[in-house]
Amino acid sequence: MKPLILITNDDGVNARGLSVLTDIACKYGEVVVMAPEQNASGKSHSITTTRPLRVEEVKRDNDITVYSCDGTPVDCVKLAFEYFCSRPPDLVLSGINHGSNSSINVLYSGTMGAVVEASALGVKAIGFSLLNHNPMADFLDAIPYVSYITEVILNNNLPTDISLNVNIPRSDRDKIKGVRICHEAKAIWRDSYEKRVDPQGRPYWWLTGKFVCQDESESSDEWALRNGYVSIVPVGWNNTHYHSMKELERLFV
Amino acid sequence: MKPLILITNDDGVNARGLSVLTDIACKYGEVVVMAPEQNASGKSHSITTTRPLRVEEVKRDNDITVYSCDGTPVDCVKLAFEYFCSRPPDLVLSGINHGSNSSINVLYSGTMGAVVEASALGVKAIGFSLLNHNPMADFLDAIPYVSYITEVILNNNLPTDISLNVNIPRSDRDKIKGVRICHEAKAIWRDSYEKRVDPQGRPYWWLTGKFVCQDESESSDEWALRNGYVSIVPVGWNNTHYHSMKELERLFV
Repeated sequence: MKPLILITNDDGVNARGLSVLTDIACKYGEVVVMAPEQNASGKSHSITTTRPLRVEEVKRDNDITVYSCDGTPVDCVKLAFEYFCSRPPDLVLSGINHGSNSSINVLYSGTMGAVVEASALGVKAIGFSLLNHNPMADFLDAIPYVSYITEVILNNNLPTDISLNVNIPRSDRDKIKGVRICHEAKAIWRDSYEKRVDPQGRPYWWLTGKFVCQDESESSDEWALRNGYVSIVPVGWNNTHYHSMKELERLFV
Repeated sequence: MKPLILITNDDGVNARGLSVLTDIACKYGEVVVMAPEQNASGKSHSITTTRPLRVEEVKRDNDITVYSCDGTPVDCVKLAFEYFCSRPPDLVLSGINHGSNSSINVLYSGTMGAVVEASALGVKAIGFSLLNHNPMADFLDAIPYVSYITEVILNNNLPTDISLNVNIPRSDRDKIKGVRICHEAKAIWRDSYEKRVDPQGRPYWWLTGKFVCQDESESSDEWALRNGYVSIVPVGWNNTHYHSMKELERLFV
């Protein structure tokens, strides 16, 4: 039997990156796509509990069915697992995201929320992101890397309880040099809300911000991406900081 | 100068747990509260990027100012840091959540999203949750533990890059026995969407689910809570699974 691959994203069911990823996945198996009907960037691991979800079938071909859902990327994974996949998927792919999910961005990313959820549910999962926000971004040079990584993970076991966060540099700047296994660079967004006043004189605040990387390590994803490599970061879904348990015991016991 | 304590939650600015936490924090310093105007449970680490945020001042006393914001808990932390705190806070508290955020619930929790964000911004942060979903829950037996843990963390350094996820058992069932430093129990939600049909004949799906704990370890938070202890889990904000990097290198290089 062909592998069953479930695909989602956070840019929405009409995003170019989703259709590129779907075309790649079709080479390897039967594909079910369930993606948010609208842009769900920044939705992280959020789930919808206060209202029900709606689903529309967008397309049905031989080996591919596409649904749109009015929930978050994590909702898409949960609902597709339960109702829209004929059997448990062998692999979950998310993306290809328009824009970076490297470093601390993984925390906010809906694309990666879906991936982390799939790994918690015991399924191999990979999130792909291209460092180009443009809705018409050119994915051509990313395709061989997305195919290669998908193939490796389909044919091998992933370590238990992890998923992969894959980021791909812009190839219009430099030729991509290969892949590197990395850790998430320590970085933060220095937020800077822009305060404006509406025509009725009431204030409102727009999130802006500057990405500040505090990590020069050559094993970080930021280093890899700056130097023309595809970064692959193993992401755990259990966030316990085991190393700190002893130190905390001294404080409390 | 008194410590500055920023408080938020995900149950919303009118939740009873928020007002209990605010009363406790006032004993230790100057307090700024910025909480979602509506219930934001399940919002995880999500941020608002496609529209601006609105803020209302709800209350201003000597040492306490309360704002409501139409964003997520993480939005509240970011915006309060930038615009509504007169100086960087010394401590961020979130909760007291009506319902558990133990084990895998930390992934979905807006209460804990806010806490993790604060730790990424370099500030000590604690999320408090009571294992009782009732909006009128009785927090009386929780108060001494919330006070004690807050005091310990105000007076000591936390290990870098972590925050605390504190869950408190229901004391109407058993007397609380003390605190335990724990790891997050391995557990999942076995989702089960309930399919219904609306009066126009169109289907919709409600998220339900069953919490399945696969971890019997006595050092887990689920064990502690089942046995009448307050659980304290150190939570990291960098989710790299370092141990898997070598194994992945064998697959890819």
